[in-house]
Amino acid sequence: MTYCVGLCLEDGLVMLADTRTNAGVDNISTFSKLHVLSIPGERVIVAMTAGNLAITQAVMNLVLEGPNGLDDQPSEAVGKSHPTLHTVPSMFAGAELVGQAVRAVYERDAAALKAQDIGFDVSILLAGQIKGRRVRLFNIYAAGNFVEATADTPYLQVGEHKYGKPILDRVLRYDTPLAEGVKLVLVSMDSTLRSNLTVGMPIDLLVYRKDKFEVAVQRRFDESDPYFQQIRRQWSEALRAAYQAIPTLEDI
Amino acid sequence: MTYCVGLCLEDGLVMLADTRTNAGVDNISTFSKLHVLSIPGERVIVAMTAGNLAITQAVMNLVLEGPNGLDDQPSEAVGKSHPTLHTVPSMFAGAELVGQAVRAVYERDAAALKAQDIGFDVSILLAGQIKGRRVRLFNIYAAGNFVEATADTPYLQVGEHKYGKPILDRVLRYDTPLAEGVKLVLVSMDSTLRSNLTVGMPIDLLVYRKDKFEVAVQRRFDESDPYFQQIRRQWSEALRAAYQAIPTLEDI
Repeated sequence: MTYCVGLCLEDGLVMLADTRTNAGVDNISTFSKLHVLSIPGERVIVAMTAGNLAITQAVMNLVLEGPNGLDDQPSEAVGKSHPTLHTVPSMFAGAELVGQAVRAVYERDAAALKAQDIGFDVSILLAGQIKGRRVRLFNIYAAGNFVEATADTPYLQVGEHKYGKPILDRVLRYDTPLAEGVKLVLVSMDSTLRSNLTVGMPIDLLVYRKDKFEVAVQRRFDESDPYFQQIRRQWSEALRAAYQAIPTLEDI
Repeated sequence: MTYCVGLCLEDGLVMLADTRTNAGVDNISTFSKLHVLSIPGERVIVAMTAGNLAITQAVMNLVLEGPNGLDDQPSEAVGKSHPTLHTVPSMFAGAELVGQAVRAVYERDAAALKAQDIGFDVSILLAGQIKGRRVRLFNIYAAGNFVEATADTPYLQVGEHKYGKPILDRVLRYDTPLAEGVKLVLVSMDSTLRSNLTVGMPIDLLVYRKDKFEVAVQRRFDESDPYFQQIRRQWSEALRAAYQAIPTLEDI
């Protein structure tokens, strides 16, 4: 399982992903699910992936290096001759490209996976900004179609989304500042980590500030990170205090 | 969908269920999912049901009235001649009886349901106390098997359990007083109501105090209930305040 959450706010993007990959509960590994493409001054594109690791890696390979991408060439060089995230003219075109890649991998792998009773499980959050255009955040589904976050609902989640959703629904708004958004996604991740063992530390955070065309913050939090520890402790204590402050029903 | 949560605490039971039943999103109704059998001084047994309404009603009919139960006879009278929840000698035997009833309904209905592409979806929280025995809480699954809450994990949920789980995991303990347990399940329900439209008000609360053999509190909360409104407002405000109190990361 996985938990990734992306916020598309007035001031920019906040993206957070866990790193746990598991094939059964007795085979867990750490893989980054946060993929960053930064061409300073021109574009920043971020993808966060959930689902079957073989599928998500194949899709990311296709959209970063193109269908003939070579392992030994820097992806920037290869990107110039193929439609990739390096060259797409807009984030919408980027979402279409990721959708097409999902469909291409489906064509290649789905029948063989089905023969092994494995579903075609993939969803990808794609966000970023390309010079001259606005910041956007998309969720691309296993069918290759996609939806976009809006000012009404400025966040999207993939993977184990339920445990971390209530706090976002209660507090997040489009005009929430980026620093507040970071706190919210960390709290949301904390609730998820506590409830689903297959979502695991460390976690990867990325913050992008609108119209900067470079990554503002990219940071990995592990269990011992003092800030994340503080959030966990303070949040837990605050919840206890909050529920204690509620008066009890008179007749019990 | 449904959300039911039961707490089996040192002092007794706290049981809470929503009342929304839906066949598609355009056909919603209110049905009580909380079934109470009280023989004052002798036994209190509570069942909360989730899943297909036809299945849960059939099961509850079987365990309250027996296989030949007649609609026009009071269930207490009928109960005497059949093994029902009125006569089971222990809560464990009650859980077995419910499990057998689930299997009987499966035998009767599952093939016909499958022909309509409808799964056999049912789970039931069964709790209570019979004179001379201890308070127990079980979750009976669609296969008729069941698990029991323990001091380590003193709560069980059926239906849409994820949204309301984090607060229980953080705060609930076996020695939590009943009045605090009531606050916790109402907060847990509030999170669920906000996130899943197919869980709906009003909600039914039951509190049973150990060794009393009568229901302590049975109360229905609707949208306008002042106590539930207070919990919603106070909890929401407390969460906002709690997250605002967390310091922001320095470098954002």
